[in-house]
Amino acid sequence: MADDNARRIQLPKQVAVLNVGLGTFAEAIRAQGAAAVEVDWRIPARGDLQLVAALTRLYGRLNSQVEAANTEVIRRLDESSPRVVGISPARAVIPDLDERMVLHCGPPLAWDEFCGPLRRSVRATVMMEGWAQSPDEADSLVAGGRVILDEANRHSTVVPMAATVGPSTAVFVVENPQGGNRSFSPINQGPGRVAWFGVDSPEAVRHLIWLRDCAGPVLDEALQAAGPLDLFSLIAQGLLMGDDVHMRSQATTNLFLRAILPHLVGLKDRRAVSVARFLSANHLFFLNLAMAAAKAATDWASLVPGSSVVTGMARNGTSFGIKLSGTGERWFTAPAPPVEDALYHPGFGQDLAAPDIGDSAVLELVGLGGAAAAASPAVANFLGGTMRAAVETTEAAESICTGRSSRLQLGFLDFRGSPIGVDVRRAAELGVTPAINTGILHATEPLGQIGAGIAHAPLDCFRQALLALDELLA
Amino acid sequence: MADDNARRIQLPKQVAVLNVGLGTFAEAIRAQGAAAVEVDWRIPARGDLQLVAALTRLYGRLNSQVEAANTEVIRRLDESSPRVVGISPARAVIPDLDERMVLHCGPPLAWDEFCGPLRRSVRATVMMEGWAQSPDEADSLVAGGRVILDEANRHSTVVPMAATVGPSTAVFVVENPQGGNRSFSPINQGPGRVAWFGVDSPEAVRHLIWLRDCAGPVLDEALQAAGPLDLFSLIAQGLLMGDDVHMRSQATTNLFLRAILPHLVGLKDRRAVSVARFLSANHLFFLNLAMAAAKAATDWASLVPGSSVVTGMARNGTSFGIKLSGTGERWFTAPAPPVEDALYHPGFGQDLAAPDIGDSAVLELVGLGGAAAAASPAVANFLGGTMRAAVETTEAAESICTGRSSRLQLGFLDFRGSPIGVDVRRAAELGVTPAINTGILHATEPLGQIGAGIAHAPLDCFRQALLALDELLA
Repeated sequence: MADDNARRIQLPKQVAVLNVGLGTFAEAIRAQGAAAVEVDWRIPARGDLQLVAALTRLYGRLNSQVEAANTEVIRRLDESSPRVVGISPARAVIPDLDERMVLHCGPPLAWDEFCGPLRRSVRATVMMEGWAQSPDEADSLVAGGRVILDEANRHSTVVPMAATVGPSTAVFVVENPQGGNRSFSPINQGPGRVAWFGVDSPEAVRHLIWLRDCAGPVLDEALQAAGPLDLFSLIAQGLLMGDDVHMRSQATTNLFLRAILPHLVGLKDRRAVSVARFLSANHLFFLNLAMAAAKAATDWASLVPGSSVVTGMARNGTSFGIKLSGTGERWFTAPAPPVEDALYHPGFGQDLAAPDIGDSAVLELVGLGGAAAAASPAVANFLGGTMRAAVETTEAAESICTGRSSRLQLGFLDFRGSPIGVDVRRAAELGVTPAINTGILHATEPLGQIGAGIAHAPLDCFRQALLALDELLA
Repeated sequence: MADDNARRIQLPKQVAVLNVGLGTFAEAIRAQGAAAVEVDWRIPARGDLQLVAALTRLYGRLNSQVEAANTEVIRRLDESSPRVVGISPARAVIPDLDERMVLHCGPPLAWDEFCGPLRRSVRATVMMEGWAQSPDEADSLVAGGRVILDEANRHSTVVPMAATVGPSTAVFVVENPQGGNRSFSPINQGPGRVAWFGVDSPEAVRHLIWLRDCAGPVLDEALQAAGPLDLFSLIAQGLLMGDDVHMRSQATTNLFLRAILPHLVGLKDRRAVSVARFLSANHLFFLNLAMAAAKAATDWASLVPGSSVVTGMARNGTSFGIKLSGTGERWFTAPAPPVEDALYHPGFGQDLAAPDIGDSAVLELVGLGGAAAAASPAVANFLGGTMRAAVETTEAAESICTGRSSRLQLGFLDFRGSPIGVDVRRAAELGVTPAINTGILHATEPLGQIGAGIAHAPLDCFRQALLALDELLA
């Protein structure tokens, strides 16, 4: 009997626990004074059996095919070195742009689905083109089909927030020598009550005309004198200077201004003074150039069949869409999410905020914006004021990205490369989607930007995209 | 007997150790599996009995007097808001500047004690003034006493590296409205083989003449049009953009350029183009403005009797000197230290390096440079490439500073204020002195800057200053 007792299972004096899954178990063990190591394990794809089946194939039998395609996509994202070469009227450079066409952000949608800010911006561009004299007249032209609306992305073009592009809009011309492709983006309109913030006032229309007739030609002359400027080279420097190059692009803007300074000062055109005044007061000027660079890189990367990497991500204020390299031109959409973790200008709040809008989410696909939150104390301010929260945002991006930039470095993380190439498999498996650093517009009134914050891409887009990729490859 | 045994001192089952002093004791305890908490205690003032006696008085009977004075010094450092108001020939603005005088960095010294780079820079300025046609002729003028040398600091002026100032040199005029005082610094000469890097070639002299006759008047006109610019406001932004505003001032330079951009473009003077080209290629341009701002703040702060705060710190390449607010104009000097933690340009190394030189160490007294290392991934690169090392450099500054800036924030440390006001008592007690982020010049040849690194102020200066303050107050 004594012998029997001795052979009973003896509980060890020291217990260490490896806890897989729910953290509360580990907490309970720690509360009793024992050590517990946690493994952050979750049920894959939240237990969605259709997704689990698709993931089983895409990580199993199809894995080597997908990985090979993804490696090529990452190479293209990492090696593209787009350069801005000039500014031109849209009609002279943007492919398939109809003479009566206006380009807008995000996936395509019907006129009656347009949110307030985007509707007002379209009207402003229609008036800028001289096709209508009032917002009402512009509205009925569009409603009557006498102005054609199309998504900018289909035309190698990206537009921030609610900005729109007509045939005479002055756009940056960006060349990607590695891919042999080009991309386009309008000149950033600057702060205040302007069309890209959803304003269609006479002043906003006059500003569009000034950008077209004055800023465009003057800046083009300076850019021609400066020669092609490598955009990711400026972006890499800006990332080490507190920019995430989405919510904040001030350092990169200043680097760009320094680069063109002698050429601006050297212009004989006296209108250069008003352009210089505009540049000096616009710390978001580089945003549109960064977007065009990201667009050029993702467009080249989008031509790789079989890849599970996201190469398109954009919102129109009504819906949010993503595209995969492996599924071509098809958008996978869901309702546009609200912007969270927001800071509002005094007197404004979430009840007045339009949903997430604009093509700028393309930045989050190439290691910028939310992916580079750890680069930016300014972004940390939106996340409670601690760098830890900014680092966690970058770490979340790392968890769903399949590559790392070799040129975009995060100084605060000892210069490790920023995460690039969102893998739809990882996003669907973990239930983690890109965090997007973005501005917020007034939903119903032409009052411009009312705040900024962080939006999270809807998981449903990633679910649809994963299933479509599986169907295509299986 | 059994009872006696029971009363014997029983060793506890669990031992936790509080270790004060040498870390090796704690390590030995940890090696045996027990917990040890370390207190970083050191013998005060390294056991120097004279210092301990002085510290006993200055932290004891004299403490409240010293603390009250220090509070006022910190207020002056923190509240000074110097503004650049223009550029002028030195003779028109710098007080007590003799018609045949050349100002140099650091404490005063005899001509035969001048290090190579500073000697060559003096010659270049003598030739720029037209007093001599060759370096040899310049040399004999100075050796013969026909050119007077004086320390710039005594004339409310600061000069970086080996830069020197003659009566016709174009200098920034900086006003400190809070203190009612002014400070001066020459225009930064930019990169290459230039006089501030110890070069006296004909090209270096021609560049000084160009700065005087072209850059000075052109930039003055732009500055007059721009109106007074608050320098610490630009510096505070630059700190959140990766500058330590000593070794690196690129972000702050770009902010300054953006502020004057419309006024530069607006100039009718066609020489503005060459000035813009110079500005566009000079990422250290703001360094001299930051130094002038720090000089204006420390000069006002230096007028508080009884304070133990360092309000002057400068090197001439031969000696290193500090001044205390409480001991007035007296320099406490020691031999100039070597620059450590250095990165050299290819082909150069420590054997070719001149000792630490220039007035720029004034920046480390107002929360910049080494004190703000944690602001700058670029500085981290000099400290082994990790932000941890940069943060430790800032923490070392915190250990000897008695205040915190309310406007200069360190983003990566969750926006805590940068340490300001080096207390000579703390430095002497802990044996810790300011780390200074600085450039390195070639010691013997006119080859310019050959690297950059971190210099540590000699402890002996702080020892002398502490004893002098004690003698004065006791």
